[in-house]
Amino acid sequence: MRRALAAVAALRRCGPQRRYAHAKCQANNARLSPVPYLQRAAMLNPDKTAVKYGDDISLTYSELMTETRQLASAVSRAGVLPGQVVSVLVPNVPVAITCHFAIPGMGATLHMINTRLDARAVAFQLEHAESKLLIVDCELAGIAKDALEMIEDESKRPHLIQAEDPMHAEWSATDGEELRDFMRTGDPNFELPGAEHEDDAIALSYTSGTTGNPKGVLTHHRGAALNSMSVSITWPLVGGDVKYLWTLPMFHCNGWCLPWAITAVVMNLLLGATEEEKAPVTERMPPRVIQMMTGGAAPPPSVMRELEQELGIRPLSAYGLTEVYGPCTSNLWDDSWDDLEEDERGARLPWQAPSLVHEMYVAEKGGFDAVPADGVTLGEVLLRGNAVMKGYLNNEEATKEAFDQGQWFRTGDMAVQHPGGRVEIKDREKDIIISGGENISSIEVETALHQHEGVLHVAVVALPDPFWGETPVAVIEAKPGAKVSGEDIISHARSILAKFKCPKCPIKDVIFRELPKTATGKIQKHVLRAELLAERTAKTKSNVPQ
Amino acid sequence: MRRALAAVAALRRCGPQRRYAHAKCQANNARLSPVPYLQRAAMLNPDKTAVKYGDDISLTYSELMTETRQLASAVSRAGVLPGQVVSVLVPNVPVAITCHFAIPGMGATLHMINTRLDARAVAFQLEHAESKLLIVDCELAGIAKDALEMIEDESKRPHLIQAEDPMHAEWSATDGEELRDFMRTGDPNFELPGAEHEDDAIALSYTSGTTGNPKGVLTHHRGAALNSMSVSITWPLVGGDVKYLWTLPMFHCNGWCLPWAITAVVMNLLLGATEEEKAPVTERMPPRVIQMMTGGAAPPPSVMRELEQELGIRPLSAYGLTEVYGPCTSNLWDDSWDDLEEDERGARLPWQAPSLVHEMYVAEKGGFDAVPADGVTLGEVLLRGNAVMKGYLNNEEATKEAFDQGQWFRTGDMAVQHPGGRVEIKDREKDIIISGGENISSIEVETALHQHEGVLHVAVVALPDPFWGETPVAVIEAKPGAKVSGEDIISHARSILAKFKCPKCPIKDVIFRELPKTATGKIQKHVLRAELLAERTAKTKSNVPQ
Repeated sequence: MRRALAAVAALRRCGPQRRYAHAKCQANNARLSPVPYLQRAAMLNPDKTAVKYGDDISLTYSELMTETRQLASAVSRAGVLPGQVVSVLVPNVPVAITCHFAIPGMGATLHMINTRLDARAVAFQLEHAESKLLIVDCELAGIAKDALEMIEDESKRPHLIQAEDPMHAEWSATDGEELRDFMRTGDPNFELPGAEHEDDAIALSYTSGTTGNPKGVLTHHRGAALNSMSVSITWPLVGGDVKYLWTLPMFHCNGWCLPWAITAVVMNLLLGATEEEKAPVTERMPPRVIQMMTGGAAPPPSVMRELEQELGIRPLSAYGLTEVYGPCTSNLWDDSWDDLEEDERGARLPWQAPSLVHEMYVAEKGGFDAVPADGVTLGEVLLRGNAVMKGYLNNEEATKEAFDQGQWFRTGDMAVQHPGGRVEIKDREKDIIISGGENISSIEVETALHQHEGVLHVAVVALPDPFWGETPVAVIEAKPGAKVSGEDIISHARSILAKFKCPKCPIKDVIFRELPKTATGKIQKHVLRAELLAERTAKTKSNVPQ
Repeated sequence: MRRALAAVAALRRCGPQRRYAHAKCQANNARLSPVPYLQRAAMLNPDKTAVKYGDDISLTYSELMTETRQLASAVSRAGVLPGQVVSVLVPNVPVAITCHFAIPGMGATLHMINTRLDARAVAFQLEHAESKLLIVDCELAGIAKDALEMIEDESKRPHLIQAEDPMHAEWSATDGEELRDFMRTGDPNFELPGAEHEDDAIALSYTSGTTGNPKGVLTHHRGAALNSMSVSITWPLVGGDVKYLWTLPMFHCNGWCLPWAITAVVMNLLLGATEEEKAPVTERMPPRVIQMMTGGAAPPPSVMRELEQELGIRPLSAYGLTEVYGPCTSNLWDDSWDDLEEDERGARLPWQAPSLVHEMYVAEKGGFDAVPADGVTLGEVLLRGNAVMKGYLNNEEATKEAFDQGQWFRTGDMAVQHPGGRVEIKDREKDIIISGGENISSIEVETALHQHEGVLHVAVVALPDPFWGETPVAVIEAKPGAKVSGEDIISHARSILAKFKCPKCPIKDVIFRELPKTATGKIQKHVLRAELLAERTAKTKSNVPQ
């Protein structure tokens, strides 16, 4: 010990901290970006199928690279400057992939628009983004034109280019510039300049705007490059002759960074299944395990089990937000759980672990103190890391609020933290039901109701109640042909849940009807809540004696 | 087209490029480093075996994390400052892994020393690195002490700490501070500060110094983090219950970044095989494909085929240098090659493709012009990317020379570029034999000779020749019991190679003897060449009449 102290003294004498010069130059410093992943894939696997669309259309990596260069050049020659926004309103067609490389490749920002939006919502985004160019699939040209007309200042309307789809000859660009013609103005050998700095914006994606105007989430090249690598490792994607069947709309958080990630590992993308591939999985015994990524709320454990045991599909659930480039956590399996009883194992399925490029914990609402890791105490999920957005476009206030004191990104999602650190998402903050002073997770009630054999889809929302403050109301789509009553649902719920968490009145609190859903299949609880409220108010009014 | 031009004009009017503010803060910007990979693994898989050493010793990820914190704290309390160097001279024992996280974790630079060096070479490195602390395995304490005594200025001798190895009780720290005692001065809950900047030095590794004094290669946190991710994707490493058997010394380019990469995917490291695992692979049919990474010169195609077809081991060959964090290319397989004839397929095995974080091409010697991608024209391999060293420690001249005009790192390795861009390494520039004005790749001749059934190891080097300038000399270790003569070798060589590439005289140019090898098993051609030259000179002298 004396020797150690002597050593301390000796070392202290050595003086100040030494820094080594870093000859930072092109040789040892490259701007991080996912764009070079395509350049590498095209060099290494030029003849490999990159994108397959339907039975007849496919692009090799070399062809995808050439199209990318040509489109980037055409966009550049059309006067779009680095840092400006190019908007893209197309379904999952090959051009969506090309845009993911061409637009960031020439230094502009890619703005993918939700294809289910109406003209007014599209117009809002185009105007807010100060978009310079709008590439639209002919199928959606009507909405695009209506949206452009809604932008009053004509000089602020982006230039419109219509993309024809060889799979759908019924839509054609009869009255404007077609994408193929536009691309012919570009140079197929154009050298992609990429971004000037690695934290320049790569993409702009609007939130759905459930709490006001949609916010424009800006992500950057560095984050997209890192998240693509992280996704490839976590899921894990492997190259070779493995197929990736594309089902997630690419306008949704840029398809969770997968348009970039799959080129990093050089997979085949299938845009929609071919006739052969559409045959039920059960009829074609899979030659190897099929892995399926699911997002949004984790599927109920019963559904997860069914997928695995009956269909041979291994479900991997993820959690994420547009603000963190899509999925930022996954249900990374702990092998030691294999030995648990089936119920215990099932309960672990929604437990989320952070990705390689994110940190996460659950904090007391509004603060930074961690909730106890007891699997019970609700708190808010906080995130940070290199794959967290730059900020909201032209919305300093929202950015400041989201980056609370610059330390963490506040998700607004409520969760519990389990012993060991994994996190289980319980609800959006605004979907939590506070009944008689108790917090009820709407997801917990939905998971319980989903186990009823007659239930196809279910959403549980809070409605105001004069006595309880709020009360849980379950809205159910029953399975075709299933006979199920409000009484059945309530007694089923009570067999699983604490009584205060269950809907109370079989007529008022259990409603059978179709649920409103978003383009990505999420149930729109805010729409549902508004509809139910409006109906109740109308009913109350009609009950008022005239 | 007119419309497109009108659009150009309209867009140009929109004025200057727009940059978006980036609210850079802790929430959305983390310093890249591989250290947090361990923190994540310890959080997610605390009870999983991280390191297994022999049959009895193992560390869980949680234990590895605690040891890391404690060592980092002890090193810090001993007065080592961020940016200073801590040297480590140990074989592949668990403490080598701990050092890979603890030293960079407290902001210092990890200097792993080749365990086969003599005291003088160790002393040179310690003095050049201005090392503050030397952690040495008791087995190597003698060399360490001799090295310290060779440093004349006592104040410049690093403080010595000896690590005992429970597997080898025969070596013990009888006369100095033991690592366990030293670690007890540290706080097991120490928060690792990490590096201040992501391009701060993480490690210092000395080249072997074949062309003068060894050079100290400095790598950084950003490069190590990215290369670890890239290695995980390229090879690909997958998590779960997959074992990684460690054979590469960790002093060798920090074990090719694998000490960091395996924690990113949370694998088990086996430090040496246990008795059970030592049973021949062929006697225990592998339950799944065993992948084997090999570095240095690619194994001859015949060896690669044997591994795959007879042992069920899939060899993956890599190429790299200390200056680029170890392997920077791999023989990424192109599925379309599966259909080639066996010889053609075999010829593809050494074709190298760059990693996700490196760019590569083959340039004319001394210049930047690419050689034709014809698979024939020799040139020098140039590399660049985020996983290229910061530079050589205290050696501006060598750094400047290596980063030619700041654009590319010159490897000094000769290669050909194949159509499509893959690169086949032919030789170190200094190992090329120039005979009668023709370039001969020593590796090409070795590959040919290796196909002779009596040859175990072979090295081909240039010796001066009064007529040819240089002439190829083959030095061979024959297989035990094999009867093989110089004549056999030459006639075998001529059946495969152009005559000018073959050794000429069966007595003078084909020599049977043991080959000098490095700690990592590489044949030391410079040593061999020096020995042969010395022998020839001696012989010539003894022939001079007295």
